[in-house]
Amino acid sequence: MLTIFDWYNGPYPARVRIAVQELNLLDQVRFVSVDLWKGEHKKPEFLAKNYSGTLPVLQIEDGTYIAECTAITMYLDSLGPTPLLTGVTPRDKGVIHMMNKRVEIEFLDAISVYFHHATPGLGPDVEHYQNREWGLRMRDKALRGAHYFNEVLKAQPYVAGDTFSMADIALIGGFVFANIVKLEIPAELTALHTWHARMLERRSVQNWETISNPVSASV
Amino acid sequence: MLTIFDWYNGPYPARVRIAVQELNLLDQVRFVSVDLWKGEHKKPEFLAKNYSGTLPVLQIEDGTYIAECTAITMYLDSLGPTPLLTGVTPRDKGVIHMMNKRVEIEFLDAISVYFHHATPGLGPDVEHYQNREWGLRMRDKALRGAHYFNEVLKAQPYVAGDTFSMADIALIGGFVFANIVKLEIPAELTALHTWHARMLERRSVQNWETISNPVSASV
Repeated sequence: MLTIFDWYNGPYPARVRIAVQELNLLDQVRFVSVDLWKGEHKKPEFLAKNYSGTLPVLQIEDGTYIAECTAITMYLDSLGPTPLLTGVTPRDKGVIHMMNKRVEIEFLDAISVYFHHATPGLGPDVEHYQNREWGLRMRDKALRGAHYFNEVLKAQPYVAGDTFSMADIALIGGFVFANIVKLEIPAELTALHTWHARMLERRSVQNWETISNPVSASV
Repeated sequence: MLTIFDWYNGPYPARVRIAVQELNLLDQVRFVSVDLWKGEHKKPEFLAKNYSGTLPVLQIEDGTYIAECTAITMYLDSLGPTPLLTGVTPRDKGVIHMMNKRVEIEFLDAISVYFHHATPGLGPDVEHYQNREWGLRMRDKALRGAHYFNEVLKAQPYVAGDTFSMADIALIGGFVFANIVKLEIPAELTALHTWHARMLERRSVQNWETISNPVSASV
């Protein structure tokens, strides 16, 4: 059995929850809630699992903790006979990892910084330091990123080319976060919105908030 | 032939230059210089290769550009029969990717932000916006990160466990950057310094600045 420490509707947890379902691993996973809004991910007992204090974290059967969405996805995608989300050929691995990271830098992580620094974020009990000017810069960066990914998706059906991959999942995470912070993705970015509508047709992208199973418990 | 667009002594270029040598791929690579100090990496002709405007970028034989050190390393490490830097088992892949990212977040990227925001960085012609307060926060984060990695390296010989990996290379990149910005790694972090001294015994870590071959040319 694998354990995922996360929070049911967080944008980064969404990435791993979608990956778990795309890989048909849901029956091998139990979820343990770590309440973001209470700052449980910044408390010593959780920091011992993940120094960076971020969700989600996967615990595998030998007890090892694996943090970071990309690392967790690499682990999960390596369990099957052939990778489905992270590339098979050297070229595909390189391009998928590049686009996955580019989504983080130019969109998802930028929205996260905006949330934590230029909005109330998780509230005064959790956000001990805010740099509003930096947060607003990152909001603008994310909007530029949306324009860039719109251009990408004019030219190809998925973020990293012809196939669905973890790079699409990362961009879906960005849309989740944009929705939480009410950051409007301009309507004129039609290729981006069309791609997102297609993504929402995938079952994994529809139901990730509700897949926590009955063994879930607070950490 | 593979082409690497980089700058001979940059901390991020160092990561790929070390990987190229660890994988014995030097004779398959040519280097093209992109002058960081002239801001060539922020000019439109280079941004067409890499939207994020960062070095290094790998161009593979079909013309595809692959940016981001981890993505480039994934490509290069997949060329051989067995990965040497990015893990073979699901567990090792997960842990190596986690620690590689953790080095970036907690040390290398934090030093980069310090350099670009709280020091003159690449100079006024390149650094069009600086947020000094954020830069200083990131310097302090990097120093906390150094303490964390010291604890990691008290318990195991390499950043991700028992074997040299791209996570070690990322931390070496952090030391390269710390040296450039004269950020002193406290002497009391003896496990970290002992690890670094061991890394400096590797030929790949000694000569990466000087491996650009005669076909190098400005972009």
